[in-house]
Amino acid sequence: MIKILRIDSGAAGGPKATEVPTGEYTGLGGRALTSTLVAKEVPPLCHPLGAENKLVIAPGILSGTIAAMSGRISVGAKSPLTGGIKEANSGGQAAQVMARLGYAAIVLEGKPETDDLYKVYVNKDGVKIIKDNSLKMLPNYDLAEKMKAEYGDGVAMISIGPAGEMKLGAATVACTDMEFRPTRHAGRGGLGAVMGSKGIKVIILDDAGMKMRPPKDPEKYKEANKKFVEGLAKHPVTGQGLPAYGTNVLTNIINEAGGYPTYNFKQGRFDGANQISGETTAETETARGGLATHGCHRGCVIRCSGTYNDKDGHYLTKQPEYETVWAHGGNCGICDLDAIAMLDFLDDNYGLDTIEMGAAIGVAMDAGLLKFGDAEGAIRLMKEVGQGTPLGRILGSGAAVTGRVFGVERVPVVKGQALPAYDPRAVQGMGVTYATSTMGADHTAGYAVTANVLGVGGKVDPLKPEGQIELSRNLQIATAAVDSTGMCLFIAFAVLDQPETFQALIDLINAFYGLNMTGDDVAALGKQVLKTERDFNARAGFTKEDDRLPGFFKTERLAPHNVVFTVPDEELDKVFNW
Amino acid sequence: MIKILRIDSGAAGGPKATEVPTGEYTGLGGRALTSTLVAKEVPPLCHPLGAENKLVIAPGILSGTIAAMSGRISVGAKSPLTGGIKEANSGGQAAQVMARLGYAAIVLEGKPETDDLYKVYVNKDGVKIIKDNSLKMLPNYDLAEKMKAEYGDGVAMISIGPAGEMKLGAATVACTDMEFRPTRHAGRGGLGAVMGSKGIKVIILDDAGMKMRPPKDPEKYKEANKKFVEGLAKHPVTGQGLPAYGTNVLTNIINEAGGYPTYNFKQGRFDGANQISGETTAETETARGGLATHGCHRGCVIRCSGTYNDKDGHYLTKQPEYETVWAHGGNCGICDLDAIAMLDFLDDNYGLDTIEMGAAIGVAMDAGLLKFGDAEGAIRLMKEVGQGTPLGRILGSGAAVTGRVFGVERVPVVKGQALPAYDPRAVQGMGVTYATSTMGADHTAGYAVTANVLGVGGKVDPLKPEGQIELSRNLQIATAAVDSTGMCLFIAFAVLDQPETFQALIDLINAFYGLNMTGDDVAALGKQVLKTERDFNARAGFTKEDDRLPGFFKTERLAPHNVVFTVPDEELDKVFNW
Repeated sequence: MIKILRIDSGAAGGPKATEVPTGEYTGLGGRALTSTLVAKEVPPLCHPLGAENKLVIAPGILSGTIAAMSGRISVGAKSPLTGGIKEANSGGQAAQVMARLGYAAIVLEGKPETDDLYKVYVNKDGVKIIKDNSLKMLPNYDLAEKMKAEYGDGVAMISIGPAGEMKLGAATVACTDMEFRPTRHAGRGGLGAVMGSKGIKVIILDDAGMKMRPPKDPEKYKEANKKFVEGLAKHPVTGQGLPAYGTNVLTNIINEAGGYPTYNFKQGRFDGANQISGETTAETETARGGLATHGCHRGCVIRCSGTYNDKDGHYLTKQPEYETVWAHGGNCGICDLDAIAMLDFLDDNYGLDTIEMGAAIGVAMDAGLLKFGDAEGAIRLMKEVGQGTPLGRILGSGAAVTGRVFGVERVPVVKGQALPAYDPRAVQGMGVTYATSTMGADHTAGYAVTANVLGVGGKVDPLKPEGQIELSRNLQIATAAVDSTGMCLFIAFAVLDQPETFQALIDLINAFYGLNMTGDDVAALGKQVLKTERDFNARAGFTKEDDRLPGFFKTERLAPHNVVFTVPDEELDKVFNW
Repeated sequence: MIKILRIDSGAAGGPKATEVPTGEYTGLGGRALTSTLVAKEVPPLCHPLGAENKLVIAPGILSGTIAAMSGRISVGAKSPLTGGIKEANSGGQAAQVMARLGYAAIVLEGKPETDDLYKVYVNKDGVKIIKDNSLKMLPNYDLAEKMKAEYGDGVAMISIGPAGEMKLGAATVACTDMEFRPTRHAGRGGLGAVMGSKGIKVIILDDAGMKMRPPKDPEKYKEANKKFVEGLAKHPVTGQGLPAYGTNVLTNIINEAGGYPTYNFKQGRFDGANQISGETTAETETARGGLATHGCHRGCVIRCSGTYNDKDGHYLTKQPEYETVWAHGGNCGICDLDAIAMLDFLDDNYGLDTIEMGAAIGVAMDAGLLKFGDAEGAIRLMKEVGQGTPLGRILGSGAAVTGRVFGVERVPVVKGQALPAYDPRAVQGMGVTYATSTMGADHTAGYAVTANVLGVGGKVDPLKPEGQIELSRNLQIATAAVDSTGMCLFIAFAVLDQPETFQALIDLINAFYGLNMTGDDVAALGKQVLKTERDFNARAGFTKEDDRLPGFFKTERLAPHNVVFTVPDEELDKVFNW
């Protein structure tokens, strides 16, 4: 990964590719690279859909190697949804393939002069950019079929669906999985809209003829990887819970904890939870000939995904994630697993963030457009997004815009981004992360569910403010570092609980690059990333007043625990004092 | 004006009225009162449509007296459009009637428990609040007919149309004029949505049996008023231009100056300007039996309004203001005066801000929904707003939301509020006001067109940055003071140019209240109002980064002068350094 591919969409006659050395970005990967580049090169007050914004796609520093779990790819830009800096990352094949091709990043920049749509093909011989308006408004699955016909299914595809072309605030950047299905998404913050604004529909990465990236010390690397995999296998979450039931194992857990936001964050428990739980999903998948345990990229040993078939046994979608099942399910009062799977498929197909869409539909339900629990209605609304009707565009612009247009006060967003599947009143550590993250409300930015609910990495009472600031701070730092390695965040369960697995991760980095990093160095990297992001946001006009939850979380009590969010504002302002 | 009427919409069983002494707000009127009360009582981070926001309606300190031009009423709240503090003021009868009834302010607070709609009736005997769901979604003109049947046309009406009930960001608070038509609006910032969120459809003010407010020194007051009126009569703008052609006299002037934003701010001159100018409007009005010169409230001596009849000689709307003619006209490439008048009528009828709606339709045209110049299409879109279709709600949420939903980069807003009818590149003093005003882009907040174009109050080259900061600063200070007196802002032309007219204004205040104020005291009041508003906005999370124009004004050259906005950011940050 010694070069950066820059594609200038504003070049006369159409996008033009240039390969440059990594230069000042050398040694950075994933989120560290996307955020550093965006902070340095994108004017914080620019329009997110304008010429000055840049979309940065970067595999992690361990991607493309034999290391297990190293298949995350980061996508960054100034977010059309939040107006702040954004990094969203995705599984799938793209990270590994792109890293093997030697690219530390692909950067889309400039603004096209025309409405033409382009396809980018990258292989060992270089880069081809092809105008192809026949791709216009193709959903991701159809696009994948078409690309498979042209390039086979051994390549990796990064793409946008119609939502990205329409430049909607909930538009994602999709990555194909091992079956060349567009099921993994850099979902949050509308990054697909930025890709759409550059006129790039799809990037095909073909690593035929390329090799695994070689470590400086191959033996040490192999050894570290072995210990790392062992650590993951022996931890109950990564070794048992996630493989058996996927992330949706959380439905019953969070519901039991009373932190499952139901009916647009009106209560903390959902009567229909059991019908849509991970256990029920796994059973259904197995019974219908799908897979309950499956990886999303080569080198995954946790295998938290799966395939979900319809009643007739035909593939419908990948195993919906917990947050998706919640967003389209409990949050909307829907307990029909097939409907939720259909909504997941539509999100993937149109290129939409499942969390943002579930939240937007929840707000629309509060506005009276649909009754809570109306699964058919939700599917109908989602199809409007794909069609680009005015109502569809409203919803596809996210929960905040939906609230604005329909005059709704109860809009669960921070910095314009919808809250995920953990009520901040009953999981107060998550509330701290939602409020203070540079990303807007984002569970992955500092997953305090660990110590708040799962008893991983210590224990902190989820209903009380004490200890939440420190917990969220440490998790946000660790996450910013992990998001830069290319490692799947789920390694954190084992890394937090098992010192030897944490050491194995550091050994991987050291062995690969010939370094002598310590845990402190990893923390320093995380802090540096957060500092860079906070600085960008400050220059974009963000203040501590943006680091707040919507008011109703402080005033409306959440059943069954009858709690409000009680972490004081002054404490929130200390998260980044380290 | 010794009492405040507080109506708590959150009271059990429906809104409850309480009369309280003015207390700490004694001596304040208009914008000084609304902004002081909002800043003190409304939490800056609250949801604009929530229980904690308050809608404050306040006549000026000279309203309800014999003073000419004293009929402005201020409406304030946290704005649903900008998220900051908001004062918008209106002509019409309400200020005079309310002041005579003895109210310094009516404050709507709390949040209703039900969707019921209420009517408030105030007369010398007190306050009645009546539930009346038959008023739901009534347009303002129909509402006026209904109220006239109940209360006669000697009362004043403050109301919202369907837009306010739908809580749209462009919703206004309407006031009836001398003919009991709902033609005067506190237009900007979505204040109608706040009124709608309180469940109050209409306030009827009946001053039967009440008298003119008596000055401390009646003789001096009469004398000062005489001089004041003389000053207005002898100034060419207030004595000739405005009476003859209304505010729309500006179309030819601003177009000639190359500062008339055309096709969503793409050029500074409009080929069709002559077809929609004030001169053409006055001719048309006269030819059709309308009025080219008419006041909007009792006591107006400038009489810049009029009545616009359709081709058959039937009343269609009041004389559309310059900014309306521009917003729906040149900004959308439309040069059909009848279509513009129809759009003005629809705005008034639904209760929508003409500037925000014209800007939103301009953005929609840029998004390809309509062709520029399509007058019928614009009327069709406007009717969608009244019907509350998804597309209508998008547009009614304003230009910024419309840009978000349709993925448009060229969105002429500051702090979420649309720029009015003066291009900041060719009238750079207005650019300073747009960027820095506490209100979002607002021409009335510091009308630098005076010295930039009209040669009133000095001369400052409109195409250059020099002198614009000081000009905008002084005008913003003066305006904040004038907006607190109840005086129509148009007195400023004579007050700026004629020291004796300025003195007459101060004499009016002194004679009425038995004070010894000087010009410096007036400036101090204006500064205090701005400071209060700036402080609210800072606590709401606004920073200097919010005091900026959209980027394209700094990069795209405006024909015919081929200029960009050149006032440096660092200079903008000095506007409030006094």
